[in-house]
Amino acid sequence: MPGAHRAAGLHRPHPSSPEEPPAQEDLLLAAAYVSDAQYNRNVPFETSPQAVRLYHFYNHWTMRAATYFFIWGDLALALFEEPALFPLPFLATSIAEVLCLTAFSGRLVHFAKVTPQMVFWKDTKNICIVVTIVLTLIDLIIYGSLEAVNIHGVRWSRALRPVFLINFPESRQIRRAFRSIRNTLPDILYVFLLFIFSMLIFSLMALKLFGDRGLKTVEGSPYFTNILDIAFELYVLVTTANSPDVMMPAYEFNWWYSLYFITYIIINTYIFMSVFLAVVYNNYRKHLKNEIRTLAYLKRHKMIEAFNILKVKVGTEFVVKEAQWRQLAKIVAPDISSSHLELLLRISDEGQKGYVDKMNFLRLADLLNIQVVTINIKRHPLEAWMPRVYQSSPSLLVQKVVRHRFDTLIIIAALVATVANTTIQSARKYNSQQILDIVLILRILRLLRIIVSIQRFRVIVTTLINIGPTMLTFGGLVLVVYYVFAIIGMEVFHGKVHFFDPSSTSPDALECGNPALKDSAFARGRYCRNNFNDLAASLILLTELTVVNQWHVLADGFALVTHQASKLYFIGFHVVVVILIVNIFIAFILEAFFVAYSLEKSEVETAIEKKIQELGVGVQEEEVQDGKLIDNVDAKDSGFSGDDGDNKRKALKGLYFRIASKKYKTVDALLQQMFESEIAPEDEGPSLEEILNFSPSDIHPKNPSFENSA
Amino acid sequence: MPGAHRAAGLHRPHPSSPEEPPAQEDLLLAAAYVSDAQYNRNVPFETSPQAVRLYHFYNHWTMRAATYFFIWGDLALALFEEPALFPLPFLATSIAEVLCLTAFSGRLVHFAKVTPQMVFWKDTKNICIVVTIVLTLIDLIIYGSLEAVNIHGVRWSRALRPVFLINFPESRQIRRAFRSIRNTLPDILYVFLLFIFSMLIFSLMALKLFGDRGLKTVEGSPYFTNILDIAFELYVLVTTANSPDVMMPAYEFNWWYSLYFITYIIINTYIFMSVFLAVVYNNYRKHLKNEIRTLAYLKRHKMIEAFNILKVKVGTEFVVKEAQWRQLAKIVAPDISSSHLELLLRISDEGQKGYVDKMNFLRLADLLNIQVVTINIKRHPLEAWMPRVYQSSPSLLVQKVVRHRFDTLIIIAALVATVANTTIQSARKYNSQQILDIVLILRILRLLRIIVSIQRFRVIVTTLINIGPTMLTFGGLVLVVYYVFAIIGMEVFHGKVHFFDPSSTSPDALECGNPALKDSAFARGRYCRNNFNDLAASLILLTELTVVNQWHVLADGFALVTHQASKLYFIGFHVVVVILIVNIFIAFILEAFFVAYSLEKSEVETAIEKKIQELGVGVQEEEVQDGKLIDNVDAKDSGFSGDDGDNKRKALKGLYFRIASKKYKTVDALLQQMFESEIAPEDEGPSLEEILNFSPSDIHPKNPSFENSA
Repeated sequence: MPGAHRAAGLHRPHPSSPEEPPAQEDLLLAAAYVSDAQYNRNVPFETSPQAVRLYHFYNHWTMRAATYFFIWGDLALALFEEPALFPLPFLATSIAEVLCLTAFSGRLVHFAKVTPQMVFWKDTKNICIVVTIVLTLIDLIIYGSLEAVNIHGVRWSRALRPVFLINFPESRQIRRAFRSIRNTLPDILYVFLLFIFSMLIFSLMALKLFGDRGLKTVEGSPYFTNILDIAFELYVLVTTANSPDVMMPAYEFNWWYSLYFITYIIINTYIFMSVFLAVVYNNYRKHLKNEIRTLAYLKRHKMIEAFNILKVKVGTEFVVKEAQWRQLAKIVAPDISSSHLELLLRISDEGQKGYVDKMNFLRLADLLNIQVVTINIKRHPLEAWMPRVYQSSPSLLVQKVVRHRFDTLIIIAALVATVANTTIQSARKYNSQQILDIVLILRILRLLRIIVSIQRFRVIVTTLINIGPTMLTFGGLVLVVYYVFAIIGMEVFHGKVHFFDPSSTSPDALECGNPALKDSAFARGRYCRNNFNDLAASLILLTELTVVNQWHVLADGFALVTHQASKLYFIGFHVVVVILIVNIFIAFILEAFFVAYSLEKSEVETAIEKKIQELGVGVQEEEVQDGKLIDNVDAKDSGFSGDDGDNKRKALKGLYFRIASKKYKTVDALLQQMFESEIAPEDEGPSLEEILNFSPSDIHPKNPSFENSA
Repeated sequence: MPGAHRAAGLHRPHPSSPEEPPAQEDLLLAAAYVSDAQYNRNVPFETSPQAVRLYHFYNHWTMRAATYFFIWGDLALALFEEPALFPLPFLATSIAEVLCLTAFSGRLVHFAKVTPQMVFWKDTKNICIVVTIVLTLIDLIIYGSLEAVNIHGVRWSRALRPVFLINFPESRQIRRAFRSIRNTLPDILYVFLLFIFSMLIFSLMALKLFGDRGLKTVEGSPYFTNILDIAFELYVLVTTANSPDVMMPAYEFNWWYSLYFITYIIINTYIFMSVFLAVVYNNYRKHLKNEIRTLAYLKRHKMIEAFNILKVKVGTEFVVKEAQWRQLAKIVAPDISSSHLELLLRISDEGQKGYVDKMNFLRLADLLNIQVVTINIKRHPLEAWMPRVYQSSPSLLVQKVVRHRFDTLIIIAALVATVANTTIQSARKYNSQQILDIVLILRILRLLRIIVSIQRFRVIVTTLINIGPTMLTFGGLVLVVYYVFAIIGMEVFHGKVHFFDPSSTSPDALECGNPALKDSAFARGRYCRNNFNDLAASLILLTELTVVNQWHVLADGFALVTHQASKLYFIGFHVVVVILIVNIFIAFILEAFFVAYSLEKSEVETAIEKKIQELGVGVQEEEVQDGKLIDNVDAKDSGFSGDDGDNKRKALKGLYFRIASKKYKTVDALLQQMFESEIAPEDEGPSLEEILNFSPSDIHPKNPSFENSA
């Protein structure tokens, strides 16, 4: 692989003399490296000027947004296809699908032009996408032809749609979560085999202990006489969903028998389920740390690569000139304000020597990642022009809203809820009292503000908010699994169970329109609404299965209307979602809290804050919120002008900075920050080959080792 | 405190000259220190010869066994008191209780004679025991007097009985688990408040959203109209026990409403419950490491104390003479075989110089803790005298059994099960076929042997067996909580619910003999057997509550027969057992697995194994089991006699050693071993004051700092 890159690298003339300023092409290439480092991208791209330009375009936000639009559009098609929530003709949905496939192909071709051919075809992600596109087209053609001659086929390729969500380079997080699962599988498998073995032993014992005693369940059916039934009941008991009912007949017969069930629960529910969590968590941690390490070293590699492109020799050391540094930052972050840029330059070029040395240059990606809020302490134009309007009470309210952002969020939530409620109530008489009530309740959420102000609560709430974004990754992961199971469920169980309006007097309503459900626990529990008749109902049903309770009633119900083997679908869902994904979720929350407890401010953040304070242009968040800012301006302004009068700093005049809230950081960022603080600033990391050995998958950097070029 | 000790220390003449051999009194004192170090005891004892002798007696196994006998006897009294499983008259149980109290007082007086007075009265444990004894006596007198005039009182002091189990110094593990809980409480409390707050917000929202829609539950009662009911239902939903039933009426009305419940479950069930685990686990870890550190340093302190008592000067260094070392080891471990002692001496006195230096002396407690199996390779007397009998098939079977201990355990289990089954079946016709079946099933457990032989399975199974003993600690902890709740439950709910034989035709059987239960879910689920009518039934019911599923049905049932407020009993049990204890249990299993994954052989174990191999007297466990031993004897024997002929080693002749299985180690031991491997052998640890600051509770060593005496 590195060979492929080096060959590509030969096409581009490297600045031969260190004194010669780098060309625009070099700046673009360096910017691509810095940008990749900033966003932790690991895409191996060709270094020819044309490929670099294409690569910048590939990463442009419009292209990424368009890709996401088509991915979600493709997934959403299930809402409109039979069994549909909002039915559309097959022609409409198939045209939409072909459109999506075209967009995916286009994106893939674009990617192929950016990356070396060999790398492209060695990447499983690309192969997956190509295969899925082809399979979907074949399925569409077969289904369409069958439909034309009025034969109802199975749209099996719909279950493959999440492949697009997983395999485009944008979904790195979801892919990592899947990798986490894949890495955990071997270890989980061994525990699972042990667990199944223990379950079977207990099943045999139960058959011998209770089989021929003539006991009856509450429903009056024979108790523990069939080994398959026993195994299923005991599997359900592990999930606790049929406790204590499954034990009652034996317990009523003789109280000693309860010891059998208690032993079973201690071993299989408490110990084995904890072991599952331990194994998942141990693997999660191991691989997480490993990937974070890889990411951190790759980032440094990219930054060194960028430095080597732009470096010029000043005295004895290689540096990047201020002008090049500015141009580079402008390309990487086009929307950066000149005052922000000035601030970053001040931090990178501490001594104002007109150049940035290697150590400071390497921090650029991190500096750009820290959001700095620029506050312009000019009077509000409205205040200057129309003091009366500005001081009026509605305007003051708006100002207050702007200042209390936390609160604002809640009020927006209240508005959304109100609107939603109004929509729902459209069929009913308009009830303004009720809406006011809800707004009132949501006002109670203002209490959250008080809670956050208490230090003890703040740690918990902050951590919870911190892990919010990464929880979205889990949302994606869960969505993929749910989607696949929902599509399968709709194909298998569609139309088997019908929901009748609660006011319906039809006798069929009592058995969900299916005589097979007569007298079943499913019908008695009024579970008819829990069916696979459209995507929304399927997803809600799968959520209920995730919560676990009563899942055996649902499984039994669908087994009654189809075949006992369909219980395997429900057991499979339980294993995948509850044993794997929920445990990974818990592992993730555990780790997030441990990281949060041991969190320190990052070195780079400290540097920015120090510089802001040094320049006397810092403000505290609380000051802005509480409107105290104006009082402090004069004192600070004078302090600022008391500094030496460098004209570059004029850009900073009248402006105040503060580091944007650190609340919205992901666990990854926290971990990476923790790890980076352990790498010495002058440490250039291990060789690329070593980095790749950390975690062989998902990383294909084609850059030659920096050690040779340094 | 150290002052108190020093005063006591003055009474005992310290060996003034380093050449003078230590007196028997000094040996006893040193042995007390070594023994305390060996068993991690932290009892501050007087150092006067008489107190030391009393202390040895206090620690004698017969005294400890007697204490446990009375503790368990006292707890078991609940089986014989009203409501009794095996009723005994009040006079009999009260006499037994007074007997137990007398024994506890005796033990306490013994302890008071061993420990300095001031320390004794500053120790909360002792105060607790004294107060509980007094309270129990008062309760007995009041209850007896009332009983004499035929008024039925409440035996409230019964709930205090677990105090004895917790507070005697023997139950260090259980006490530590309780300390774990106490340490976790503040953090848990804040999360709990947030959780309750979130629950109340959701309750208010539910009231507004669903309250006046006229919806009905499956039972036909109004749906979500009362804020208290809603709060209870939502609390139950956090435990998932009423999912999806609680959602169905709203979901049937409009599917959008399911989003309310899904949001609630994600926030409160998944996130908050994981946060509980994270907080518990984080605290558990923090405090566990801290206590282990304290224990490790205290152990070293005690060993140094013992060394300073016995040391004599040889050349430039202080050492302990071989004779004293032997005497000391014999006092600490009276049952040690002379060959084992010889082996340990060989390890401690590597160069056979006739004395043990300080570094090796400090390892004595660890050396004694490692169980070494001595195998005598003489032919079995039976084989020599009656070869025919020895070679007969039953005898071979016995030999096989002895060799395959793992298997033997299973067969013993099978026998126990068979006997139990026979007892149960005594009322029925004797059914030998069934017993054979069960024995057959238990034979299947032999498969475990195959499983253990697979490396992947071995790690899991070994870890599970490793944590077995510590799980007993949890058993103790759970028993204490269960016992208290069971006693309270029996006082409150006794006789409210009756169990009728399944064959009973009484109409009362359908409502558990209580009209209040008519048409309740409790009666419909045939839960009459789940009652508080005796200790066994109460404990089984509490186990069902721990498993969580259907706990709200049980809570509702008992609320119906008493008062709605009794739901608080069930909620309290859920908070204490499921949120606290089960989470600590999971934390413990997680930590055990992480420790097991990172486990290395301890330095001391390695030393023993090395010496065994060096002397050529080692055997592998597998060799003994597979009967290969005899083949190896000659070769090894010749290797051994090839060594230089020191007559001390004669004791080792014909004997073979191996380190006993490491399977039965506690997590504590593993952790301590991990920590100790990080302390340098020459490190004498921080000062006593610093050690005490690690964890101020439960440690009262009164020894003066060793740094002054060294």
